[in-house]
Amino acid sequence: MLKEAVYHRPGDCWAYGYDGQTVHLRLRTRRGDRLTVEVLYGDKCKPWIHMQKAEMKHLSSDELFDYWQAEVHPKYGRLSYGFLLTEGSESVWFTERGFLKSPPTEHLGLFEFPYLHPVDIHTPPEWVKESVFYQIFPERFANGDVSNDPEQTEVWGGKPEYHNFFGGDLQGVRDHLDHLTELGVNVIYFTPIFESPTNHKYDTQDYYRIDPHFGTKETLRDLVKDCHARGIRVILDGVFNHSGFTFPYFQDVLEKGRESRYYDWFHIQEWPLQVIEGIPTYKTFAFERTMPKLNTANPEVKDYFLKLGRYWIEETDIDGWRLDVANEVDHAFWRDFRKVVKEVKPDAYILGEVWHDGMSWLLGDQFDGVMNYPLCNAILDFFVFEHDDAYSFAAKVGGYIARYPKQVTEASFNHLDTHDTVRLLTLCKDDIRRMKLAATFQLTHIGAPSIYYGDEIGLAGEFDPDNRRPMIWDREKMNRELFEFYRTMIALRREHAALFNGSFQIQSAEKGSRVLVYERQHEDEHLIVAMNTGSEQANVQVSFAEGRWVDVFSGEKQLMDGICEQILAAYEFKVWLNQ
Amino acid sequence: MLKEAVYHRPGDCWAYGYDGQTVHLRLRTRRGDRLTVEVLYGDKCKPWIHMQKAEMKHLSSDELFDYWQAEVHPKYGRLSYGFLLTEGSESVWFTERGFLKSPPTEHLGLFEFPYLHPVDIHTPPEWVKESVFYQIFPERFANGDVSNDPEQTEVWGGKPEYHNFFGGDLQGVRDHLDHLTELGVNVIYFTPIFESPTNHKYDTQDYYRIDPHFGTKETLRDLVKDCHARGIRVILDGVFNHSGFTFPYFQDVLEKGRESRYYDWFHIQEWPLQVIEGIPTYKTFAFERTMPKLNTANPEVKDYFLKLGRYWIEETDIDGWRLDVANEVDHAFWRDFRKVVKEVKPDAYILGEVWHDGMSWLLGDQFDGVMNYPLCNAILDFFVFEHDDAYSFAAKVGGYIARYPKQVTEASFNHLDTHDTVRLLTLCKDDIRRMKLAATFQLTHIGAPSIYYGDEIGLAGEFDPDNRRPMIWDREKMNRELFEFYRTMIALRREHAALFNGSFQIQSAEKGSRVLVYERQHEDEHLIVAMNTGSEQANVQVSFAEGRWVDVFSGEKQLMDGICEQILAAYEFKVWLNQ
Repeated sequence: MLKEAVYHRPGDCWAYGYDGQTVHLRLRTRRGDRLTVEVLYGDKCKPWIHMQKAEMKHLSSDELFDYWQAEVHPKYGRLSYGFLLTEGSESVWFTERGFLKSPPTEHLGLFEFPYLHPVDIHTPPEWVKESVFYQIFPERFANGDVSNDPEQTEVWGGKPEYHNFFGGDLQGVRDHLDHLTELGVNVIYFTPIFESPTNHKYDTQDYYRIDPHFGTKETLRDLVKDCHARGIRVILDGVFNHSGFTFPYFQDVLEKGRESRYYDWFHIQEWPLQVIEGIPTYKTFAFERTMPKLNTANPEVKDYFLKLGRYWIEETDIDGWRLDVANEVDHAFWRDFRKVVKEVKPDAYILGEVWHDGMSWLLGDQFDGVMNYPLCNAILDFFVFEHDDAYSFAAKVGGYIARYPKQVTEASFNHLDTHDTVRLLTLCKDDIRRMKLAATFQLTHIGAPSIYYGDEIGLAGEFDPDNRRPMIWDREKMNRELFEFYRTMIALRREHAALFNGSFQIQSAEKGSRVLVYERQHEDEHLIVAMNTGSEQANVQVSFAEGRWVDVFSGEKQLMDGICEQILAAYEFKVWLNQ
Repeated sequence: MLKEAVYHRPGDCWAYGYDGQTVHLRLRTRRGDRLTVEVLYGDKCKPWIHMQKAEMKHLSSDELFDYWQAEVHPKYGRLSYGFLLTEGSESVWFTERGFLKSPPTEHLGLFEFPYLHPVDIHTPPEWVKESVFYQIFPERFANGDVSNDPEQTEVWGGKPEYHNFFGGDLQGVRDHLDHLTELGVNVIYFTPIFESPTNHKYDTQDYYRIDPHFGTKETLRDLVKDCHARGIRVILDGVFNHSGFTFPYFQDVLEKGRESRYYDWFHIQEWPLQVIEGIPTYKTFAFERTMPKLNTANPEVKDYFLKLGRYWIEETDIDGWRLDVANEVDHAFWRDFRKVVKEVKPDAYILGEVWHDGMSWLLGDQFDGVMNYPLCNAILDFFVFEHDDAYSFAAKVGGYIARYPKQVTEASFNHLDTHDTVRLLTLCKDDIRRMKLAATFQLTHIGAPSIYYGDEIGLAGEFDPDNRRPMIWDREKMNRELFEFYRTMIALRREHAALFNGSFQIQSAEKGSRVLVYERQHEDEHLIVAMNTGSEQANVQVSFAEGRWVDVFSGEKQLMDGICEQILAAYEFKVWLNQ
């Protein structure tokens, strides 16, 4: 075995509380080392003889490593442990002291998970993993109230530009909830709806006011009520990293300079406020002068936004926050934000926009989940761009499964496109076969899928502003085949714990291959997906546990047992569920 | 190069803010791989062409790995980075996406330290690293007020038993501050002084009262005032994991059961409270029935102890808290404890009792430092027990340097013995040559040294209760040679930034050898230590930068340049300082 490959450090994804009785312990070893991996564990205050041993199970693999997991239940809260790795006749112990040639004989020097405190466990709301999100860019979803349209509102269906408006509003969403219900999604994520001069509203002018072109606080309240009546939750976009240029406190600073009582609400590096060779003299989002960065370490600013976090929940009963540019706001702020939000709504979802590894925000004290860009990119690289073969794709997915605690992965927000990216269908060069493959993986993987409004009916779009086209409401112009596919898959997703709570294991993902077979399992429920992502027919070996299996799309039922060869046409996929 | 050995993950000890302008980035590679390690870094919002490259310097090595560090200054707060590893003609890039064959060409996929926020930086008080601690077990240090002696107080100098008393008190400490000043220590860490029936007082009866046998709040206030006048700080021991059996709220539960309004202050698993086969029906420290575990997740309990944390600072001006069994109290409690303490005294020191890897408490939101048991054990294993050779010892030390951020290591509490262990002199089988070697390493290493009262004058002692003998005040009975050694080394320690702020590099630590040579350096200050820990004379190669060097003990000055052979007798050591 390769000792340099072995990794464990208590905390993060390696040792964490899963629930009030359970600690997950993980270990990394070199991929392919033929090991038996066991964990020796117990209570450091009990005599050594009470130590127990458990075999660790294979969790996943990436390019270089295998990951192993054991689930242990520290009866009195305390947990000390060490690992035993056996390869043939060679055994080594791995503890906090490194590799030991002889077995440890005392608790001192073992790894410690000193006490399992429920209050420290990362606990995202239970409902998240069982949900399918639907992201709405409100200016472009539906115009339900022409009386609040901006001046120069353009005709619905026109070409989106950086600065034009189509009159979409909250009443429009209320009017079209049947569409969401029919599709089967059950959480709306709204991009910003607070007052702002732009169509995207990521430059807030008034955090305490719904943009008048979208409606009023009452409209939002009514919308949330209607949604809740249908079992649909609503989360809003909180832009606390920066304000808009027209935010009155920033305007006050612009006007009064150092005399402004809001001077320290921002990060002003040099006076006067100006842009020199593209760089503002005050900190901003990127180098965007219209988005001055907020000083969230200033107690006044902190207080203002913590109150805001609570206000919209209390006033309109929303179910959580998606936090914009969340990774550039200080951790101290988010820790308090979590407290405030959970105090007023314990099962609110706190979702951070983090495009990279989000471990630092996912320790239980900050976010419930992050937007899963790494998974999104891996899916696109395999299904859409064909940059990866099945082996590399499976390795990436395996790595992602290992890098977060289980409950984090389950509560992550798995999108394939957003208002910040090219639309999925466009990435797929309008080939809905590819789109379905990618979406099938998304909808059958661990984590809550999110669908960007219109994807389900074939809305296309290049980068911003094109990815923000007005929704198509003319049924004739909708891609109903795609809609039916999404409807079926979303229903499947929401009905089966194997999909939102189950394990994920690769059955087949060979080097150079475009065939992917994997399974999901939770208790008695068992689901298998086989995909041919290539342009030629493939004979695919699928391994079924003995029993009756139903093909989810055809409804055909069959007795299966062991390896059954399946012939999949180009870009064909099948999903089977045990009966 | 061995890819499986390469490790980096943003956060923890791998990417962290060191000060408001500086981020430290670290990378791990296989020990001995002949690599050039560089980091490519920049601001993700600037064009790619602005990316900079810096060479990473060797930080330390352990048994299996080399550790590298670079210091970078993200001008606008944002930092994206990737590593370039070159071995001969082979180069690979290492980013969040793993190993890349070709250079990255965009920020997406790099590692991210998204924003350097001063508020998130782990910032222990500056004074800690410049200090030498002195741990006092008050019942055994000095009896300054016989009027408050317990009944049946025994004669000073008698044999310590689990339950006997010698009358030590706070006035006794006040009376002997000259001893501390002469020794040169400048922080007192007191084991508990709040009211309790035992001599160790780890089972608190009244958290708001100084034990009447030790004095009063006024005595403590006066003592702290006297200490401060001498430049000595004072920290107290906070036992918040568990109360004592006689704690009135626990007594209330014992008496009233579920009717007690303090029932939820503890973790009661079954009623009635009893001990069945050695296991109490309520949670305790270990399985010790007299130490019921406090439910620090209960808001009332939390409030009570947060107020306490503030109270003793406000009332008596103490300089921090050492936290007992800190690893078994929930993180959420400690986060709030830090806030409260730092609010009332921003440079208070918060020191956790954690015997193992303490990373989870050292992220900036909880403790300033932990008791450095791993280092203590490594020092004993090499200098005292001879379990390790110089190579293995240096490898352990190298691993410890790499596993925490620099400021954490600098503010850690480096003891060689405490009230919980056998005394150092006794471990050394009364051989003060060994003791001096171990203490010299302790006093010249990174981290604040702590001396357990009496060690400096030759107090011996086996495990508890013997390690709590009354202090020797008869000068004739003190080991003055040892005292002089400590005095000299402590003065050296406190005067030289190379010792409290400098780098640490091994010069010589060969396999099978008992010779250790290392150097400390900070700016122009440079210090070299050479030790022969073996029982035979050794010829030791020491490498000096060209210049004048003074032997710290003999005062002899010499011009040195390059490698100079030094002959060290058995157990001899030398310390040189550049002039």
